Order: sequence, then C-alpha cells, then structure tokens
Amino acid sequence: MAAKNAFYAQSGGVTAVINASAAGVIETARQQKGKIGKIYAGRNGIIGALTEDLIDTGKDSIAAIRALRHTPSGAFGSCRYKLKSLEQNRREYERLIEVFKAHNIGYFFYNGGGDSADTCLKVSQLADTLGYPIQAIHVPKTVDNDLPITDCCPGFGSVAKYIAVSTLEASFDVASMSKTSTKVFVLEVMGRHAGWIAAAGGMASSKDCEIPVVILFPEIAFDRSKFLAKVDGYVKKFGYCSVVVSEGVKGEDGNFLSDQGVRDAFGHAQLGGVAPVVANIVREGLGLKYHWGVADYLQRAARHIASKTDVEQAYAMGKAAVEFAIKGHNSVMPTIERLSSKPYRWKVGMAQLSKVANVEKMMPKNFISKDGFGITDKCREYLAPLIKGEDYPPYKDGLPNYVRLKNVAVAKKLSDFTI
Amino acid sequence: MAAKNAFYAQSGGVTAVINASAAGVIETARQQKGKIGKIYAGRNGIIGALTEDLIDTGKDSIAAIRALRHTPSGAFGSCRYKLKSLEQNRREYERLIEVFKAHNIGYFFYNGGGDSADTCLKVSQLADTLGYPIQAIHVPKTVDNDLPITDCCPGFGSVAKYIAVSTLEASFDVASMSKTSTKVFVLEVMGRHAGWIAAAGGMASSKDCEIPVVILFPEIAFDRSKFLAKVDGYVKKFGYCSVVVSEGVKGEDGNFLSDQGVRDAFGHAQLGGVAPVVANIVREGLGLKYHWGVADYLQRAARHIASKTDVEQAYAMGKAAVEFAIKGHNSVMPTIERLSSKPYRWKVGMAQLSKVANVEKMMPKNFISKDGFGITDKCREYLAPLIKGEDYPPYKDGLPNYVRLKNVAVAKKLSDFTI
Repeated sequence: MAAKNAFYAQSGGVTAVINASAAGVIETARQQKGKIGKIYAGRNGIIGALTEDLIDTGKDSIAAIRALRHTPSGAFGSCRYKLKSLEQNRREYERLIEVFKAHNIGYFFYNGGGDSADTCLKVSQLADTLGYPIQAIHVPKTVDNDLPITDCCPGFGSVAKYIAVSTLEASFDVASMSKTSTKVFVLEVMGRHAGWIAAAGGMASSKDCEIPVVILFPEIAFDRSKFLAKVDGYVKKFGYCSVVVSEGVKGEDGNFLSDQGVRDAFGHAQLGGVAPVVANIVREGLGLKYHWGVADYLQRAARHIASKTDVEQAYAMGKAAVEFAIKGHNSVMPTIERLSSKPYRWKVGMAQLSKVANVEKMMPKNFISKDGFGITDKCREYLAPLIKGEDYPPYKDGLPNYVRLKNVAVAKKLSDFTI
Repeated sequence: MAAKNAFYAQSGGVTAVINASAAGVIETARQQKGKIGKIYAGRNGIIGALTEDLIDTGKDSIAAIRALRHTPSGAFGSCRYKLKSLEQNRREYERLIEVFKAHNIGYFFYNGGGDSADTCLKVSQLADTLGYPIQAIHVPKTVDNDLPITDCCPGFGSVAKYIAVSTLEASFDVASMSKTSTKVFVLEVMGRHAGWIAAAGGMASSKDCEIPVVILFPEIAFDRSKFLAKVDGYVKKFGYCSVVVSEGVKGEDGNFLSDQGVRDAFGHAQLGGVAPVVANIVREGLGLKYHWGVADYLQRAARHIASKTDVEQAYAMGKAAVEFAIKGHNSVMPTIERLSSKPYRWKVGMAQLSKVANVEKMMPKNFISKDGFGITDKCREYLAPLIKGEDYPPYKDGLPNYVRLKNVAVAKKLSDFTI
C-alpha cells in the first residue's frame, strides 16, 4: 500500500505545550517512511482543511520542528470552530473528503479539547458515513484539565505551575507590605466550569512554608459572609491573605460573580473580570487594602515556567497518536494513565473517542476542603507531580528563543470554499 | 574604636531582587569583623527602628542569608512610611537616636526608592541636626526605575524582563487565536508617572521576530482616534495586536484613563484598572474581540524569571553600601554607572543623597517613538542589557525554594513608642 499523507491541526485555546505535541506528531511521523508520506498542517485548525489552506511541515527544518517543543501557542494557528453534525452540514464533510482526496490524506490528527474531540470523532466516522477511509486520532490538550478518562490533560500542568509559582511570589510580596499597606491580594485565573486551575493556587502553600490562600471555585456558590470570615481569620492570623478566584465563580443566584450590574458612564455593561469584584467585596466588608491581578493569557502562554512533566506528556501524546495510527487505530485518543503518585509513574493509554467527546470532567468533591475554600491532601497528591520539574526554553538577548515556522503553503488543487 | 552595630531596613514596594541587596549588605558586613558588630534589620522598615522592633540577622545561617539572593519580596518586611521633617516631627528623630544609642548603631542602610532616599537623607543629617554620629547609606531599589544619577535601579531589570517575556508569550498566543477569535491582547503594567516598565513591553518585538506592540505611556496623553488607528493598522497587517498600557496613562483632560466614571449597581466608583477600559475602547471603536490581563504584583515578585544583570547589580549595591560605610562615607548612595552598552559594561559609582532624594527621573523623550506608541532604538539599546541573563532560583517539588528567615527579635531595652 502506498504511503498516505497525514494532516495535523490545532484547535481551541492554545497552551504552553500544544506545540510540544505538534513536535511529537511531526517527528514521529517523519520516521514512518513508507507508511506516512507528507505531513501537512491545517492553517488555523480545521479551517485549514475546509479551505484547503494546508502547510507543508516538510519545508521546516529538523531544528525548527524540534524548537516547537519549547515554543508556546499554536505554531500553525488555531481556531474556535466546531463542525456541526453530518445532517446539519453535509456540505462541510463532503468538502473535507474532497480536500483529503486531493492531497492523499489518510491520517487525521486533531489536537484539542472537548469540542475538538467531537470534531475528530465526526471525522473518524467518515469511512462509515461517507465511505472515505481515514484514521482520525485525537491528541488531548486543554488547560482546563476537563477531558475524561485521561488522568490529566497536556497544557494543564504548566498553567498549574504558573499559578502556583505566581501565587507563591505574590503572597511573599503582600506579606512584606502588609504591616502598613496591602493586606489582601486577589488573583483571577481561568476556569469557567471546573476549578482545576484555581486549585493549583493552593499548591503555593506547603508544610515547610505555610501561606494563607483562599480559593474560590466555580463548583462552590460564593457565600459573601463565609468568604469574608475566612479572609478576616487569615489576616488576623498571618497579617495578610491571598485569594485565587476562578473566572467562573457564581453567586448563590447562579449568576457569574463578575456580572455585578456594573455600568459605565454611558450605561454599558461592566468591563472587568471577577478579581476587582472580589477585591471590592474585601474592601467593603473588611476595610482592608488590596491589590488584584488577572493572569489571563499570561498563564496559558507561560512556556518560560512550563512544567517538565507537562512538556514530556504533551510530546508523548503526539508521538503516541502517530503510533496508534500506524497500528491501524481510528477514533481513539492517547491518554495519560497514572500508575502511582509517589513516586510518580505514568504510561500512555488509549481511549475511545466516543467516550471522550462532549464529556466534561469536574473536580472530584474530595479534592475541595470541607469549608469550600481550599484543597485537600488528595488534591495535593494529584497536582504535585503535574507541576514538577522545570523545562526552560533557550534564551537569546534576555528573551526566550521561540520559533516561528515558515509555514509554507501547499499548492491548492481545488476551487475555493466559503465557510 | 569599638565596632558599631549596623541597621538595615527595606522600604516601599518590594521587588524580585531587594533581598539580593539585603544579602549583599549582610554578607559584606559579616566580613567586617572589628568594624561592624551586630547586623540588625528593622522589622517593616523604619517602623522597626521607631518601635525598637529589631531583628538579629546573626540568628540566621550563612545558607539562609545566601538564599535571600534568590528570594523575592522583603524578607524583613517593608513599609510605606515617610519621615516628616525635623521641624514637623522632632519626636521621631529623637526616638531614632534613642534606639540607635540603646543598640549601639552607627551604620544605617536604607533600601528603597525616592521617598526612602529622603528618609535616609534625614537620618544622615542626625549628626549635624541632633549631634548623633551615624553613617547613613541609601541602597537603591525601585521597579519604577525613576531614581536619578544611577543608570538604572535594581528591581527594574527583572520587572522589565517579566513584562518583555509575558508580552512575547501572550502575543504568540493571540497570534494563534486571531483567525477566528481574539485579535487584541491588552496588558496593564505598573508605572504611575514614568513609562519605563511599559517600554519593556516593546522589547518583545525584535528584528528576528517582529511583533505588533502598541505601548501607552503615562508621558503621552491618550488620543483615542490615533490609538484606534494604530491598532487597526497592526491588526490589518499582522492579524492581531498587543497593547501594553501603563497604569498611569491619562486622557487629554489630565484624568487617569482608568477613572472612567464607571459605577456599580450601588453607585460606587469603578473597581477596575486601565486594561479593561482600553480593551473596551478597542471593542467599541473597532469591534474586535479582545482579552486583557493585569500583571500587578506578579510582575515585581517574579523572581522565577529575574534578570541576571539585575540580580548582580542588586547584590553589588548592597555590598558597595557597606564598603562606602567602612570607608567613612555618609549621606551617599551607590549607583550603577554604565560604561558601554555593547558590550555591556558597568561599574559602581557614588551619588550624594541630597541630589537623589525627591528627584524623579522620567523617560528621555528620545526613548519614545515619534508616534508615541513605541520605543526607539536608543531605548532598546538602554533596555537590552538590563533584561539579559537568567538567574533561576532552586526548585523543590515544582516550586521555587524561597527562604523564610527566622527573624529573631532583639530584646527591647526601651519603653514603647507609638507612631
């Protein structure tokens, strides 16, 4: 059988290590002479496939592909675009097949989270639904850590490390200032539905170095008086307090805490996030001086402080995806299987995509402390190995030497397609 | 002459490297047997001196003091407290002398910015004004980089590196997302009066890796239409754009841009910073999807990505302060004298405190590009060596292994004093 070409694309919010998965896919696929031909990437995810905007990764050097391992963001461009069902949009699936046929694509590697797993699942069914033979493998990625079956998701460990380190550093800062100035620092972190990232803020505190951190999880309805009592208690005991708040925290009325009905001079809805709202609650309720920060993209792009575990797992997922394809698998996703926490040991597993797509993994209840403001030892045991190890990028003139690929376009063979 | 004891204290906003200066002071002073006796630190800055709340740094080990070099924040506690003039508050100066006498203190090392230099100057005049012999040396520190005479201020280089790295990483992120999602990322950074820190955002772009960064300096009145035109141009050319905005940016009316008259449901003044305001201007003016972040304490506490140049200079300033004192100097501050930029060479200089206190160094006009939204080559040449080199702290279990000192109190000899 002649070698088929491969298609790889990145989807959804990018991370510090999604390019490490790309390196895993491309470097492994390059070794499959006779089985995999060209390795194409979609420019801006599945949109690249639909619009026949393909990148020939073969035009980039061995060194450039290797450098993807230490470069954050999505080197080929990502997209937020979910394929509708075959019934709803048959036109798009037929177009995909048209592009795959034109470029002899037999392998489809899609690197993303829950929505992307759904897209990948639909592509994996093209042999059955539309008679086009393709092997579709999903490569897991999401800072939200909410994919099922896999013990953790590449991208999460590095965000967790960033938030733990930042919470530690900011807490040292506010502790220094607390005598005459700031007593409470509020840090807003990502997490609309699940509090995995916020939980990482709790790792700033350890037995050797106790730090008062109050965590506000999206899983727990915000209780103003309990929260103020907790902060007040910490400030009285330690002189200061740090608060790590998930962007998705909701009040008891079910509305986002960030939606406080704040209006500007023109009556427009409020502009801010949840951190300034929480900081203001501290000011009004306790009269304490505060500072607040919003990490936003900084947290998920922070390759400079990526977790070594995370980088290795991201690469391994990309590598395993290609190996699964070569073994003839379709409609699967490599997973991380934890064998033990102390010492940390894990291996690559395999999940059926049908069991992954559109399933969201929440924080286990026993990961959140009884008062709802902290993490349990079980949670610490889970998180500890994920933030472990440093994997510094090389630097040039004081800045990380991140790679930009050439991203040479493959000549188009088909007519234009409008999304 | 019998050895006199030394007093060291930290003042104002802390930094990633002020403890490196502390290590420089303490390690150098420990070598001055026969000249310097005990080395005391003030708990929470000058307040520790006024309230006789002294720390015996001799109770902490060689290893602990060495670890200060890689630990952010103020290990002895800082304060925001400016001594009034002798005429206005003679009581405080007499109390200082009382404490100094009781603990045989002949050396006063004060580690801070402009306000602290003023406090240090007043202490240095105690021999003249109140007949108490003391040598007061100021150790420069401020992330704002606004002290005069010295080429740069310890603390600034590390913030600059953090902002440059973060802008680079977030720009890579938004570039990946820009096809179907976020096109503009806004990062708010410190700097009420001078745009030094915002300028560092411009270092994310280089000849090898051009990145569209719009900088909003506090020195330049915000012009909405010019700003929108600049962002629009970049988004049209690059597909995305990053904005780095100083917290102190003002509108043409002279008011802070962050004070937009935003009120919450109860009519309280707005909670947010300037980043959400700028992001909203982008949305309203150009209809582009945005994200925004506020670095706040994260930027000045980020010892994990400190500049090696900065760490070395911070230590050198502490060391030089003690050496100046031993040579008999009073009322001076060690400075950083730049000898050349390429290659970067510098040496320790000396400034008279009277020329430092209450003088604010602004960005030179020729550091800001003509359109007011970027930095010039001259600015790049200035900033480049300051962010150069990495000086990673040691890690334990995935987190920087920052030290917490014992901070053992010295037995009080005097009656209480109320500030």
